[in-house]
Amino acid sequence: MSRLDRSLITGLPPFQGMTPADLDRVLQQARSLRIAKDQTVFEQEGEAHSFFLLLDGHVRVVKTTPDGQQVIVRYISPGELMGIAHALGRTTYPASAVAAVDCVVLAWPGNLWPDLAGSFPSFATGTYKTVGARLQEAQARVVELATEQVEQRVAHALLRLVKQTGRKTEEGILIDFPISRQDIAEMTGTTLHTVSRLLTAWEERGLVKSGRQKVTVVEPHRLFALAEGRAEKG
Amino acid sequence: MSRLDRSLITGLPPFQGMTPADLDRVLQQARSLRIAKDQTVFEQEGEAHSFFLLLDGHVRVVKTTPDGQQVIVRYISPGELMGIAHALGRTTYPASAVAAVDCVVLAWPGNLWPDLAGSFPSFATGTYKTVGARLQEAQARVVELATEQVEQRVAHALLRLVKQTGRKTEEGILIDFPISRQDIAEMTGTTLHTVSRLLTAWEERGLVKSGRQKVTVVEPHRLFALAEGRAEKG
Repeated sequence: MSRLDRSLITGLPPFQGMTPADLDRVLQQARSLRIAKDQTVFEQEGEAHSFFLLLDGHVRVVKTTPDGQQVIVRYISPGELMGIAHALGRTTYPASAVAAVDCVVLAWPGNLWPDLAGSFPSFATGTYKTVGARLQEAQARVVELATEQVEQRVAHALLRLVKQTGRKTEEGILIDFPISRQDIAEMTGTTLHTVSRLLTAWEERGLVKSGRQKVTVVEPHRLFALAEGRAEKG
Repeated sequence: MSRLDRSLITGLPPFQGMTPADLDRVLQQARSLRIAKDQTVFEQEGEAHSFFLLLDGHVRVVKTTPDGQQVIVRYISPGELMGIAHALGRTTYPASAVAAVDCVVLAWPGNLWPDLAGSFPSFATGTYKTVGARLQEAQARVVELATEQVEQRVAHALLRLVKQTGRKTEEGILIDFPISRQDIAEMTGTTLHTVSRLLTAWEERGLVKSGRQKVTVVEPHRLFALAEGRAEKG
């Protein structure tokens, strides 16, 4: 296995404040992996043998209910940790992670977690901040699902992805990984049919453009007004 | 102010593994407060001047949307921390906390958080486990709200409260604090009308008994079957 260069992780939130020697020590215990599109990084309820840092690509985190319904809990962007079951006080993964595109990840043995957190307080703090941020995000989604109409929820989901992964193009802001209408349905607790109906209506009004596994937000401000439940002026 | 005895917090998860001297040091910096029913412990978006441990009572954590809709995020039981904005990497409270009954809490200055976490690793770890558990709970609610019918969601909410606070009585398991139908609606993203309709139907079938601000689950197994989406046999 070739050596991993510390430039891979320098400056990323979980590793901020570490000396170059610390970074080397942390990297010595990691291995890098390629995960092909649609392959699984880890499986819900599987033993948490590793935790991961996404270096390149996008990963969707999916929870499956006992009767087989899928909900996309969140998308992971480059620089984010995932599979940090040990930081949650668990020994199994609470959800599955699936590569939305070809990905590169670093993997550390799961049982290394307490060592790393103990030796590098900034690593522990950085991870817990991540967990804290995800808690707030999950609670915001609880509030959305409990109070908003489906049109608002879908608008919020698209705006969240634009903020997280958006890339400016001539047409507007492109969500920078393949996303299907079914994915959007699984993010917002609605049906493929409803997502298709909404995207078609928004496209006719010039708010978005969408194609196969592709969504561009043309008018983010108008979509935001819609997400906030403000009606558009005729 | 009279001295707080360490027996108040000995053995509680955030303080496990601390020596008696440590517990005394931690308690020296706390003050105890009574919060009357329906009074606010802390306010959403208010500056996080303190974090709290609930010693006695029940507290509901409520998020209010910009247009004034309320969602009950969770209930806090005795022995649990609350208002731990600093552990989430925030300086304001993400929600409001309201006493569901007369409560006793311990309060520490918010800016003491990093000191305590640094001096007492078990306190830091215990708190982060709490945050991790709340993340999983919030994600479970996202999945429920995204995939379940309202009847299942209300059944799950009642079972969660039974597990958290249930007290055995002759009639069944009583949710051990005043809870209104409006509260249940705000926990499950539905209307007062729907909660009333469901409780009435369940009462007729002998699953629950309910009165003013009072719910007893008479047949938890049957309610669980309903929560899991399994139809009852005629």
